[in-house]
Amino acid sequence: MDAASIPTPALVVDLDVLETNLATMAAALPGERLRPHVKAHKCTSLARRQLAHGHRGFTCATIREVEGMARAGLGDDLLLANEVLHAHRLGAVADETGARVTVAVDSAETVHAAAMGGVQEVLVDVDVGLPRCGCRPEDAGRIADLARDRGLEVRGVMGYEGHATAEADAEKRRAVVEKAMGKLLHAHSLVGGDIVSAGATVTYAMNTWATEIQAGSYALMDTAFGAMEPTFGQALFLELTVISSSARWSVGDGGLKALGMDHGPPTMDAADVFIVSDEHLTFVPHEDHAVQVGDRVRVRPAHVDPTVAYHERLHVVQGGEVVDVWPVDLRGW
Amino acid sequence: MDAASIPTPALVVDLDVLETNLATMAAALPGERLRPHVKAHKCTSLARRQLAHGHRGFTCATIREVEGMARAGLGDDLLLANEVLHAHRLGAVADETGARVTVAVDSAETVHAAAMGGVQEVLVDVDVGLPRCGCRPEDAGRIADLARDRGLEVRGVMGYEGHATAEADAEKRRAVVEKAMGKLLHAHSLVGGDIVSAGATVTYAMNTWATEIQAGSYALMDTAFGAMEPTFGQALFLELTVISSSARWSVGDGGLKALGMDHGPPTMDAADVFIVSDEHLTFVPHEDHAVQVGDRVRVRPAHVDPTVAYHERLHVVQGGEVVDVWPVDLRGW
Repeated sequence: MDAASIPTPALVVDLDVLETNLATMAAALPGERLRPHVKAHKCTSLARRQLAHGHRGFTCATIREVEGMARAGLGDDLLLANEVLHAHRLGAVADETGARVTVAVDSAETVHAAAMGGVQEVLVDVDVGLPRCGCRPEDAGRIADLARDRGLEVRGVMGYEGHATAEADAEKRRAVVEKAMGKLLHAHSLVGGDIVSAGATVTYAMNTWATEIQAGSYALMDTAFGAMEPTFGQALFLELTVISSSARWSVGDGGLKALGMDHGPPTMDAADVFIVSDEHLTFVPHEDHAVQVGDRVRVRPAHVDPTVAYHERLHVVQGGEVVDVWPVDLRGW
Repeated sequence: MDAASIPTPALVVDLDVLETNLATMAAALPGERLRPHVKAHKCTSLARRQLAHGHRGFTCATIREVEGMARAGLGDDLLLANEVLHAHRLGAVADETGARVTVAVDSAETVHAAAMGGVQEVLVDVDVGLPRCGCRPEDAGRIADLARDRGLEVRGVMGYEGHATAEADAEKRRAVVEKAMGKLLHAHSLVGGDIVSAGATVTYAMNTWATEIQAGSYALMDTAFGAMEPTFGQALFLELTVISSSARWSVGDGGLKALGMDHGPPTMDAADVFIVSDEHLTFVPHEDHAVQVGDRVRVRPAHVDPTVAYHERLHVVQGGEVVDVWPVDLRGW
C-alpha cells in the first residue's frame, strides 16, 4: 500500500530510521547491557525487532505490558519497573506462559503483594532523586531482607534517574546521573544481587554505573529527547490530512487525542503549529510551503510515550510504501 | 462489585452527578435545542442516557464516532461537525444502518468529497473567530450553492465559538459569543436552512442565537470548564491506588497515559499534585490527610475529552457500588 493512502490521523514509523536507532543502541549497549523499556512503544512487534538486535530482557511499566509481552513469547526476562499491589496477575501470567517476571518493591506492602501474588523475583527500587517511587538508599537492605524472609529472590536494585532527563546540558546531566548512581550503588552494597538497573535514552551513554540501561524512547524518539540526544533519529510521525485551508492557516485532521501534550505541542518542518484541539491541528505554513485541502502533512510528537498510547496501530513505512502494520497491543492496564 | 475493587488506574463516573447534569441541561435546552457532542465521552451507553433525556440528534467529531453511533442504533440525526475527505465511509454507514448523517463542509473539496461519498445532507461550516475550520461568512452562500449544485441538501450553518471558551469572565465571554454569532447569522442569511448549530458547555446558557447547542463536556465535566460553569458537577474521576508513600510524598498508579494534560495537571481534594509521569502521579497530601500504600485516591481531570480517549471503559458508580461498566466504544478514527 502507498503510504499516502493510510487513513488519517495515523502514526507512521520510518523503518529505516527505526532500524538505525536499534542498531546504534545495540552497538553501544549490546545484549543484556540494555533492557529496552516497552512503555515507549507498547508494541510487541517492535519489541521483537529489539530482541533481534540481541536484547532478551525487557522493562515494563504496567502489568498489562508484562502480560502482553509474556503471551507474545517475549518473556525470557521481564522486569516490571514499578510497584504493584495486584501482583497475583504477575504470578498468574508467569505460571501460564513460563515467563520470568521480576517486579520492583520499595515497601513492606509491595513485598507482601509480590510474595502473595506468586512472583518469584524482585528488585529493590531506590529513590535516587526523582520524586516518585523507591525507598531511601539506607532502607534498601531492610527491604531486601523482608523480601528474602518471604522467600523472594532479590536480584539487585533499580533506581530511575528521571530528574536528570530534565537537564538539557549534557555535562550537568552527567553530574546529576553520577550523584544518583552513587545513591544506587550504596543501596546495592546493602542489597546484593547481580543487577543495578537504571537509565534512560538521554543518559544511556553517560550512565556507566548501572549494569543495565532501561532506555525506551531511543527506538522511535520525540522532539523533547531528540534535542538532548541527537544520536537517535526521529522515526515516529503523526500523519494528517489537510481538511481546511485559508490564506491565514491550514488545519490537519488530528490533535489532542492523537498526541501526548505534556511536553508541549508537536513541531513541523515547513510550518508553525498554531493551535491543537481535540481532533484538529491548526498550523501556519511557512512562505512558499502553502498546502491545499487533501494534502498530507507530518508532525513530530513532543513525547512519544503518551502519543503512542492513543493509537491502535503503527504504520511501518519504507520508501513510500507501507511494509507492515503493527498493533499497539500493550495499551491499557 | 464494590467500587474499591475496580482495578486501577480507572475512570469512575458518579452516576447521580451525571444524571443531575443530564437533567439540568435537558431542562435548559430540551429536545432538539441540544445536540449533545459525543466527542467528550466517546461512549454509546452514555449517549443512550442523553437520548432518554429527550435529545435525538447528536454531534460527532470523527467518522468513527458517526459509525459507532449509527451501528448502536443512535442514528436518528447525526452531525459530523468536522470536515472530512473520506466521506465514503459516511455514505456507507448511512446505507448500512439507515442513519441520517449530515457533514460539515467549508470548501469545494469537502463539498466534492461529501457528494462523491454518498452523503445526502450538509451544513456550511463558518469561521466565527476560532482559528480552525470554516469558510468566511461572506463565502458561505457560495459554498451552499456549490453543495446544492452537487445535489446535496443544505440544512443550514454551523460555527463553533471555541475562542469564547478561553474567556474566563462570563460577561466578556458573552460578548465574544454575541460577536461570533453575529457572523454566523450573517452566513445563515446567505445559506438558508433550518439549522444554526454552535455552542459549548460554557456558552450554552448565553448563546441564544443558535437553534441548537453542541455541548458535550456538561455530562462528565472537568476542572477547566467546571471553574467557568459551576452549574454542572464533576461526574468523572480517575481512581488510583497508592503504590508508594514516604514522609515527603505519595504516588498513585496512573499518570500521563490516563489523563489529557493539555489543560494542565489534574487536581485532588486533600493533596497537591506534584509530578505526573507516564504511569505515576506523585502528590503531597495535606496535613492530616496522609495516605498509605494500598489506599485509593481520586483525581479530577483538567480536560475530559483527551482523558476519556485513553480509556477502554467507564466504571459507573452509585453509593459505593459499581452499577455498570460502559465501554468507551467510539475511540480511534
